[in-house]
Amino acid sequence: MYKVDLNADLGESFGAYTIGLDSEVLRFITSANVACGFHAGDPLVMEKTVALACERGTAVGAHPGYPDLMGFGRRNLKVKPEEAKAYIKYQVGALLAFTKARGIKMQHVKPHGAFYNMAAVDDALARAICEGIYEVDPSLIMLGLAGSAHIRAAKEVGLRAACEVFADRAYMDDGTLVPRTMAGAMIHDKKLAISRIVRMVKDGCVEALSGKIIPIQADSICVHGDNPDAIGFVKEIRDTLEREGITVACIADVIG
Amino acid sequence: MYKVDLNADLGESFGAYTIGLDSEVLRFITSANVACGFHAGDPLVMEKTVALACERGTAVGAHPGYPDLMGFGRRNLKVKPEEAKAYIKYQVGALLAFTKARGIKMQHVKPHGAFYNMAAVDDALARAICEGIYEVDPSLIMLGLAGSAHIRAAKEVGLRAACEVFADRAYMDDGTLVPRTMAGAMIHDKKLAISRIVRMVKDGCVEALSGKIIPIQADSICVHGDNPDAIGFVKEIRDTLEREGITVACIADVIG
Amino acid sequence: MYKVDLNADLGESFGAYTIGLDSEVLRFITSANVACGFHAGDPLVMEKTVALACERGTAVGAHPGYPDLMGFGRRNLKVKPEEAKAYIKYQVGALLAFTKARGIKMQHVKPHGAFYNMAAVDDALARAICEGIYEVDPSLIMLGLAGSAHIRAAKEVGLRAACEVFADRAYMDDGTLVPRTMAGAMIHDKKLAISRIVRMVKDGCVEALSGKIIPIQADSICVHGDNPDAIGFVKEIRDTLEREGITVACIADVIG
Amino acid sequence: MYKVDLNADLGESFGAYTIGLDSEVLRFITSANVACGFHAGDPLVMEKTVALACERGTAVGAHPGYPDLMGFGRRNLKVKPEEAKAYIKYQVGALLAFTKARGIKMQHVKPHGAFYNMAAVDDALARAICEGIYEVDPSLIMLGLAGSAHIRAAKEVGLRAACEVFADRAYMDDGTLVPRTMAGAMIHDKKLAISRIVRMVKDGCVEALSGKIIPIQADSICVHGDNPDAIGFVKEIRDTLEREGITVACIADVIG
Repeated sequence: MYKVDLNADLGESFGAYTIGLDSEVLRFITSANVACGFHAGDPLVMEKTVALACERGTAVGAHPGYPDLMGFGRRNLKVKPEEAKAYIKYQVGALLAFTKARGIKMQHVKPHGAFYNMAAVDDALARAICEGIYEVDPSLIMLGLAGSAHIRAAKEVGLRAACEVFADRAYMDDGTLVPRTMAGAMIHDKKLAISRIVRMVKDGCVEALSGKIIPIQADSICVHGDNPDAIGFVKEIRDTLEREGITVACIADVIG
Repeated sequence: MYKVDLNADLGESFGAYTIGLDSEVLRFITSANVACGFHAGDPLVMEKTVALACERGTAVGAHPGYPDLMGFGRRNLKVKPEEAKAYIKYQVGALLAFTKARGIKMQHVKPHGAFYNMAAVDDALARAICEGIYEVDPSLIMLGLAGSAHIRAAKEVGLRAACEVFADRAYMDDGTLVPRTMAGAMIHDKKLAISRIVRMVKDGCVEALSGKIIPIQADSICVHGDNPDAIGFVKEIRDTLEREGITVACIADVIG
Repeated sequence: MYKVDLNADLGESFGAYTIGLDSEVLRFITSANVACGFHAGDPLVMEKTVALACERGTAVGAHPGYPDLMGFGRRNLKVKPEEAKAYIKYQVGALLAFTKARGIKMQHVKPHGAFYNMAAVDDALARAICEGIYEVDPSLIMLGLAGSAHIRAAKEVGLRAACEVFADRAYMDDGTLVPRTMAGAMIHDKKLAISRIVRMVKDGCVEALSGKIIPIQADSICVHGDNPDAIGFVKEIRDTLEREGITVACIADVIG
Repeated sequence: MYKVDLNADLGESFGAYTIGLDSEVLRFITSANVACGFHAGDPLVMEKTVALACERGTAVGAHPGYPDLMGFGRRNLKVKPEEAKAYIKYQVGALLAFTKARGIKMQHVKPHGAFYNMAAVDDALARAICEGIYEVDPSLIMLGLAGSAHIRAAKEVGLRAACEVFADRAYMDDGTLVPRTMAGAMIHDKKLAISRIVRMVKDGCVEALSGKIIPIQADSICVHGDNPDAIGFVKEIRDTLEREGITVACIADVIG
């Protein structure tokens, strides 16, 4: 039986600032990545976001980022591995307070933005992140880019790893994402995007930008809840997956 | 048998900035209040401070403050109870990551600076703080000003409470501290200061500014490790307490 | 001839976070209060906001707040006068860089939120703010609550002061605003709100909550651009003022 | 006649945190780079630092950094040129408030840490920084690494540029600094370090790590005031320079 998770970034509001249609996207996803206050989110937002996910029964994970609220954690910041490790622990712990308070178990950790992207290609950084997660709770699942250094590091450290894929992004022959600056980086055709993820889940492969068919493991699909259009697309993805006989389930269920 | 705890604020360094002779004061204290990144401290400092306390076998507690690094958490900030509660949870959780990683149990929570002072006199704030602590871990001990609203709130919420006293501060007839702006607020005579705390521990009372003898519960004495003089004073306090037959032990041991 | 200014808070976005329909409200106002990075705004937002105001020919002022992004500068923070003064100078200077770069003159300074409210009733704070403004540029106009300690302080310090009034707020007999927690604090009837400000401008008086007619000086009316409804209300205010023969002009023109 | 400036980073304290022996090092330097609140410094510290420099008659410059207090601005952060430009303007403006208030002219701008290092080799970043400075005040002098992209950009933009050299750092054949990770990067021998800068000033050349003699322009020497040893070294540098007939003067005097 085919299974896949749908994950989205939640709890990115901050103080008086609101981002994301959290309640809307929660109707369709199975895992929520909750921002932890460094690149987005604040304690009150975290409290409310965990409560919201709990009401829906959606699995909750930490979404730690670089300490760069002004850049929303999207800018590369050259931190030392020991800094990365401490930043991960701090943020995972902070969210842990809210999941503990709700009596639920935190399911996973997915680094955000530049932290995620840099960990995908930097072995030392990836290892530091995974060690940080492991030290706080070895039963947490690390959600990272399919086929990346980050996934390898998680396994080496002893964490369960879940492979994330993207519906709207093109892939290189080596399984990395086509950089956004390259032509063809984004898959704009929604039908095509959805058919690609169905293939990833069912056949374990995807057509790279070059036309070559490459293997890819799809445990979880990254979706977005920024605006009504994005919500519509998530619904369409979910509907199609279910029509195709693919069970949409949280990460822990998918990777067993 | 008489018992009392000696607590000090640790881990107040931040990035390139160093405050406090943490290793020095750790030789004499039995409970360490570790800053959690809002008014002081950063993830790397927290990691190192918990490691240091572990090496010495000193009990570790969270020292959450207002989000005011520029003011070191010493300035009154009018937050709503729900904000206070979420701030407490966030910071306690953040430190929890580091104590969990070290395999030790967090012992207590002591709010910092203006957060502490406002909680001593504001029932709603005090209650919010205690609820926040309780929700994260009901076995945590709340360390607050002896005789304050904060201690009452802890008991009402179901937390164990420990009463903190000050060697170098004068008391009003109602057990509150003499405001620093009033003459006689500080006890500058070290011998007198030490004899006062011995009396608090042994007899459960102290001479108020007015000359009246008032009851006071002394579970833990607040000491400082800012400079060599302060360290010397802590050593003197500890030596005197032991000479007086008072066991210096961590909060959990004192309040049983 | 009657004249009054319409001012609104602009440039409150921050990083990836957007607040306010700045372009829309700029069509109707004559003075823009630009956030300076402490409670809202960031350097890029300031750059763009000043550019936008320049294009429309709207007068630009600084809108300095407390260093409390998480609370949007709306929470009382007990800073010392010397801190307040330095915070004002820093933020006014920061915005000055962008107005200088555009070759325009900064018109005014209006403290934000809790900073504004506390300055309205605290003489020492009000004076510190005004001294800070004066030291950076004595030709800047201080925009504060009509009849407040803040206006008095501006005059004492040697600054020109402009009196701000509110269309949607009720007044006490002494000219202070009815606290939001009191019944009747808000004027919900838009027609009534507008007729009140017309009276303030033309007759220099307003009906207080008690029914008593009290004197009030209206140099500038505070309006909002948060949402389409608010924009509609601003348009209505402006249209009515002009129909009533009141010239809507920037603060410098109003107070001459 | 030979002339050179001695510059040091000042005003790096923050809130309760103190860094640097500012009063001590001010006795020997001719230009002070004042932190502007992003990587270090706060409004009160800036106020005091400018006052201190004024008392000594030391020229004042802005020392803008990346918005990374936790990393003291020493970590590479990949900002866009438009962000860099806005960050420079904001910080230069912020300091401008304090120099205007004192009635002195700001002399120069020297980016801090990673901002400085990245600008030395990144043309687009260097240009953005210089444009930011120019737009705020075209009479400001840009102080950057001798022979770098940063110096070239300043000249292209129309700013006067001053070339900074280091006493304690080795140089590559192309005039760039030997990376700290390479053997021989630091000149530990103080006598040698001082003789090298005398040669740079008098002969306009320095011996590179390879042994090759390369040309270098030395308008200003970077010195430090972190600790008593550093202060002693600054004094020694100044004494030697004067004994060698080199006038120690502020940047504006050196570059005319």
